Amino acid sequence: MHFLFITLFPEQIEQGVGHSILQRAVKKGLITVSCIDPRSFTHDNHRTVDDTPCGGGAGMVLKPEPFVAAIRAAREKLPGAPVLALSPAGPVFKQQKAKELAQSGRDLILLCGHYEGFDERIYAYTDGRLSLGDFVVTGGELPALIVLDAVARLLPGVLGRAESAEEESFSLPLLEYPQYTRPVTFEGREVPEVLLGGNHALIKGWRFKEAVKNTLRYRPDLLPENFAETLKKSERKLFAQALEEMAEEKSE
Amino acid sequence: MHFLFITLFPEQIEQGVGHSILQRAVKKGLITVSCIDPRSFTHDNHRTVDDTPCGGGAGMVLKPEPFVAAIRAAREKLPGAPVLALSPAGPVFKQQKAKELAQSGRDLILLCGHYEGFDERIYAYTDGRLSLGDFVVTGGELPALIVLDAVARLLPGVLGRAESAEEESFSLPLLEYPQYTRPVTFEGREVPEVLLGGNHALIKGWRFKEAVKNTLRYRPDLLPENFAETLKKSERKLFAQALEEMAEEKSE
Repeated sequence: MHFLFITLFPEQIEQGVGHSILQRAVKKGLITVSCIDPRSFTHDNHRTVDDTPCGGGAGMVLKPEPFVAAIRAAREKLPGAPVLALSPAGPVFKQQKAKELAQSGRDLILLCGHYEGFDERIYAYTDGRLSLGDFVVTGGELPALIVLDAVARLLPGVLGRAESAEEESFSLPLLEYPQYTRPVTFEGREVPEVLLGGNHALIKGWRFKEAVKNTLRYRPDLLPENFAETLKKSERKLFAQALEEMAEEKSE
Repeated sequence: MHFLFITLFPEQIEQGVGHSILQRAVKKGLITVSCIDPRSFTHDNHRTVDDTPCGGGAGMVLKPEPFVAAIRAAREKLPGAPVLALSPAGPVFKQQKAKELAQSGRDLILLCGHYEGFDERIYAYTDGRLSLGDFVVTGGELPALIVLDAVARLLPGVLGRAESAEEESFSLPLLEYPQYTRPVTFEGREVPEVLLGGNHALIKGWRFKEAVKNTLRYRPDLLPENFAETLKKSERKLFAQALEEMAEEKSE
């Protein structure tokens, strides 16, 4: 899968994929990464990519000409690849979207702005927008690298066995269960006994219950209202137990 | 403000702040960035930082000893600074949190995992968790850099005048209004006439209405149910107009 970034800071992208798992994926040829710099499509001496906003106001706005020229060059290089603009004014990127992009069999073009917004007309040349969440950053480069990372790790061969993509947050609408490793006792804190007993059914049940608790604690918004109804009978019992245990914790 | 990253990949952090606005903020001494590598607190020949999960399952788990030692070293270096762990099992990072951290007057310690989860006991030595959203990435480094970026840009002097932090998404519960710059006509697409007329009241009204439409289009979840009631009378009228215009667009 090829990832093409349209960015005024290509070296930030190139360095961003130069570490750990992404670096290995590039070396193995599982993904390729390239950049197109809109600045190379400017024709004035100052290589201007921005201008003041029509109608007044603070900040600068990214100009249509260099960005649309860069989008055209990107589409020519990767025919059929969608162009997605990183923008806080867009739908929020979630794991489901990462899966769709990884399974689409298509390359991906990511359009990064920088501290300023795009001229609105630029969006007409894209296939959509992606927001990383309800916060503002100085550029689209870090958010675009996160999209690359989340998609690339789902591609066959990118994660090694030790980094398995299975059994992780967000396959169910539940957060991950707590994990433990050796030592069994660390500064007086113990690994829960059930995890040491080797009874796989008990372990599975405990993990489900703790995943429910983590979700209720940190992200109750993830649980659909009819969540209990979507569960198997045995899980429904564990879900009720988790609710009880949470209520006890609170009243203590 | 000092940002200290606990990370197995310090060079990824150092490179991550070597661009554009963050680089300038470091050079000007407005922020400082350093890293502590938990691997330097291992004592075996393999410098082991992870181990298999208790209770079985795929993947590896980050060990408590090196990470807790790193957290202690970080707290010694920055007394009073909160330690926040990047984890998908945590509350979601939003602009309000960025503001709190920027205005706290305290330094910040960010704890990054890598493809594997932390041993749950490590969290007991932190002050909380931050999730970047509902997706999974190979490490906490990119999310931690996003937190740094979102916080740093709110510190006095970090953004230049051209990059002003005012009038942006998420000060109201509204997305940004569309921006335009020259040329007035680009490939047949025009800058909306109102923005060229110089009538500031009209421009302000148009921008409010378009911000409402952007929000309804992409992030209706941002609007509280009583949103209309929170508005001034003049805004309430524009809000009603925006709803009407959206309905017309849909029926076309």
